[in-house]
Amino acid sequence: MLILKHLPIHSFNENLAYVHKDCTAYKVDDIRSLTKVEIHGGVKPVFAFLQVVDDPKLCKPNELALNTEAYEQINLPEGANVSLTLSSPPPSLASIKRKIAGNILSSGEYSAIINDIASKRYSNMDIASFLVASGSFMSAPEVLALTEALIGDKVLHWDNESIVVDCHCLGGVPGNKTDIITTAIVAAYGLPIPKTCSHSLTSCAGVADTFAVLANVDIDEKELKELIKENRGAIASYDSLDIARANKIVSSVERQIGITQQEHIAASILAIKLSAGVTHLVVDIPVGPKSRIKNTNEAMRLRKLIEYVGDMLSIEIDAVITDGSEPIGNGVGAVLEARDVMKVLRNKDDAPQDLLEKSLFLAGRMLEFDPKLRGGQGYHVAKEILTSGRALEVMNQIIHAQGKAPQPQLGHLTRDIVSNVSGVVEAIDNARINKIGIWAGASQYPGAGLDLMKKVGDTVEQGETLYRIHSCNSTDFAFANSVVDGYTGYEISGRGGY
Amino acid sequence: MLILKHLPIHSFNENLAYVHKDCTAYKVDDIRSLTKVEIHGGVKPVFAFLQVVDDPKLCKPNELALNTEAYEQINLPEGANVSLTLSSPPPSLASIKRKIAGNILSSGEYSAIINDIASKRYSNMDIASFLVASGSFMSAPEVLALTEALIGDKVLHWDNESIVVDCHCLGGVPGNKTDIITTAIVAAYGLPIPKTCSHSLTSCAGVADTFAVLANVDIDEKELKELIKENRGAIASYDSLDIARANKIVSSVERQIGITQQEHIAASILAIKLSAGVTHLVVDIPVGPKSRIKNTNEAMRLRKLIEYVGDMLSIEIDAVITDGSEPIGNGVGAVLEARDVMKVLRNKDDAPQDLLEKSLFLAGRMLEFDPKLRGGQGYHVAKEILTSGRALEVMNQIIHAQGKAPQPQLGHLTRDIVSNVSGVVEAIDNARINKIGIWAGASQYPGAGLDLMKKVGDTVEQGETLYRIHSCNSTDFAFANSVVDGYTGYEISGRGGY
Repeated sequence: MLILKHLPIHSFNENLAYVHKDCTAYKVDDIRSLTKVEIHGGVKPVFAFLQVVDDPKLCKPNELALNTEAYEQINLPEGANVSLTLSSPPPSLASIKRKIAGNILSSGEYSAIINDIASKRYSNMDIASFLVASGSFMSAPEVLALTEALIGDKVLHWDNESIVVDCHCLGGVPGNKTDIITTAIVAAYGLPIPKTCSHSLTSCAGVADTFAVLANVDIDEKELKELIKENRGAIASYDSLDIARANKIVSSVERQIGITQQEHIAASILAIKLSAGVTHLVVDIPVGPKSRIKNTNEAMRLRKLIEYVGDMLSIEIDAVITDGSEPIGNGVGAVLEARDVMKVLRNKDDAPQDLLEKSLFLAGRMLEFDPKLRGGQGYHVAKEILTSGRALEVMNQIIHAQGKAPQPQLGHLTRDIVSNVSGVVEAIDNARINKIGIWAGASQYPGAGLDLMKKVGDTVEQGETLYRIHSCNSTDFAFANSVVDGYTGYEISGRGGY
Repeated sequence: MLILKHLPIHSFNENLAYVHKDCTAYKVDDIRSLTKVEIHGGVKPVFAFLQVVDDPKLCKPNELALNTEAYEQINLPEGANVSLTLSSPPPSLASIKRKIAGNILSSGEYSAIINDIASKRYSNMDIASFLVASGSFMSAPEVLALTEALIGDKVLHWDNESIVVDCHCLGGVPGNKTDIITTAIVAAYGLPIPKTCSHSLTSCAGVADTFAVLANVDIDEKELKELIKENRGAIASYDSLDIARANKIVSSVERQIGITQQEHIAASILAIKLSAGVTHLVVDIPVGPKSRIKNTNEAMRLRKLIEYVGDMLSIEIDAVITDGSEPIGNGVGAVLEARDVMKVLRNKDDAPQDLLEKSLFLAGRMLEFDPKLRGGQGYHVAKEILTSGRALEVMNQIIHAQGKAPQPQLGHLTRDIVSNVSGVVEAIDNARINKIGIWAGASQYPGAGLDLMKKVGDTVEQGETLYRIHSCNSTDFAFANSVVDGYTGYEISGRGGY
């Protein structure tokens, strides 16, 4: 028996248990790196990973300390009696090994793996193994099984609503913040849109990052329900909602290893939207040679996959393949993207036309989920709502209702990247632009990012600015500066060229 | 600037850094799970993973605490000024992603990945991703590249020795402790054999576990050199030698995720043996339907792979395919296996004949590396050395020189698993026997394991004991008991028929 203690250490989803090297109940020499343990004493055993302490101030030989994640889970007071056993690997590990060996797993196997992830029986290492193993090949029924497993046991219900809409963009295109604009248009039209959105996984800004510049996005289920009743639209960070829990753990590992696979993204998005009670979903699949989805074959495969899973799980899917060949709008990074979004909503003359047009296109598709709307009218109705100022009005209501954010500053350290030739912008490399933005501090600092002055097709004079780098601190700024000259991400054809 | 502090927490190879949630130098809200950081202030930046602390007793807002692994690496005193930056992913992450996508990596890419692992730029999660990604397919040149990368910069040199021998068994066969016996025979013959061995990865006992029952195996380089000079043979835990460092980190992750791939095992073994300065290596590849290597095709593929890598790295390889259809000897688990080994060395009448014969076979192959020995004489010379008692004498010298171990007790909790039919033992399932041994506590407790009373071909009466389970504590014992009845691992044909 050991005495429970809480060490207030947060380890980002991992349960950690600490024992003293001279632990009275457990021979520490025996563990080497077999560190998965079960802690008994609470209602259910808690799984944790063992670390060994060499200071009685942290943990005495007769104590067992838990980090905050594990301590909250065991739900016992400090001083309670607990015991420790080595944890045998969960049976679903055999399925992970089967996947590594190239097999197709059953829906029961996916469900067991995800359950073991949710109950913290797997370390982040194990989850990474599973992600990499399943990322290399998954059949469509496997993606369906993974989606179902990720939904979990909690689904939001929207009483008296026969249509609950949302839109999700598969990403890879910097600056693509149509989501905020379409939410305002759809809510203004009157369809309920409880938008769930995420912080950046690998991009310069997720929708949650950008909207957090304008309003509070940490909204719980109760608040979300009130917001939808009040305004028809709301934009909530998925992290703040207690839905699709296992998916949060999986996404956190994906974020940490920096590896994402289309099949996982498809399963993850559909699981989140189904958990949020969405019945009708537009999926935007941008294609471009330097986008996440490189060509139409790949896009078509993904579209069919999402349609198949959607059909099997009874969510209406309208998957559209869009142009992802260059960044959308001018801003890349949360503060700059929020600026573009507000320009569009305010009908400003200098609002980015590509962001405006894409938002109207997607909002139009969402509006057409309404049976009362005549086919082909969606775009025009969306345009009317935007240009009349009703979208802005609703957006201001939403911001007010969610709580206005203390708007962060745009990064004050700037450098203009200029063209060394005169000519026409032939191409902008999404992946490179994203990387430079990340190096400049984007996603970590909302004020960091790139402000694009030139887009594809624009003429440019030698010495004219292509884009401006914004950083919030000198380390990021120096780093972005040191790498950007190697390759700016812009291809410019010399004047008179082809 | 933050003030350095040491938190004496051991995390099994991972560097951890702790900051207070109100850290004065770093905005903790921004990190979410982007927790890879670089700590500056020492000679070189130290990479670590960030955890957040909510108690100034552990770490004040103006402090940065490091766990023991990271603190030893930064090599600064407590109170020193340090700073913290977010770490960008190492460039070799792109190679890991390429491997996940199914590409063949260059030798430069493997070298970069392994260097980044050795300098702790990767978390265990990242290493797991790499292992799973590269485990599914590696070309022979890739295995060569990985082997070279794993060798690192430290190789033991054996002056004035033109032949330095060793033998390695690829495992999957419970009880297979020929290594200790062959070391005694080869050393008695006079060839130098600085055997490096490991603790269990997934088996009931590694050679290091079994020999640790008899003698101290924690031997450093200087001691190993003296031991070889003195006795020609020594058995050292690879963990105690400062060679092939990156491989230790990789193996620790493999052990924790419980996933091992042939290609990695081949690279890992050859890297260790080459680092230990071995020039001539027998590789034992046991084949059996319930062994790690299931059939001769697989064994042949592996043999060719090891021969290819060995030839390219100028180590003489004699790879032999052996019978791995059932456990070798009677004991499974460190104490029981050590008992079998000593019975063979002592020429006892009840010494397991299969262990004896296999040891002579392998020792014979090792002796034939000596050009002075006539072809085909190895086995006979080995047998003469064993039966004359010279092998025992040398083993006693080795044990004495390394330091006799305080022999651990055999597990006192026992249960006899009896046959419920009369007949003949048709097959013993290696994987199942290994699993039951692990459940009984083997590898964690040297005294735990199985004592096999019947082997394939033995007749058995109804009610006669097939094997005895030994456990060292009631939890393991209860668990092994609760599962063993489901499937004992023995197939027995009823009397008079198949």
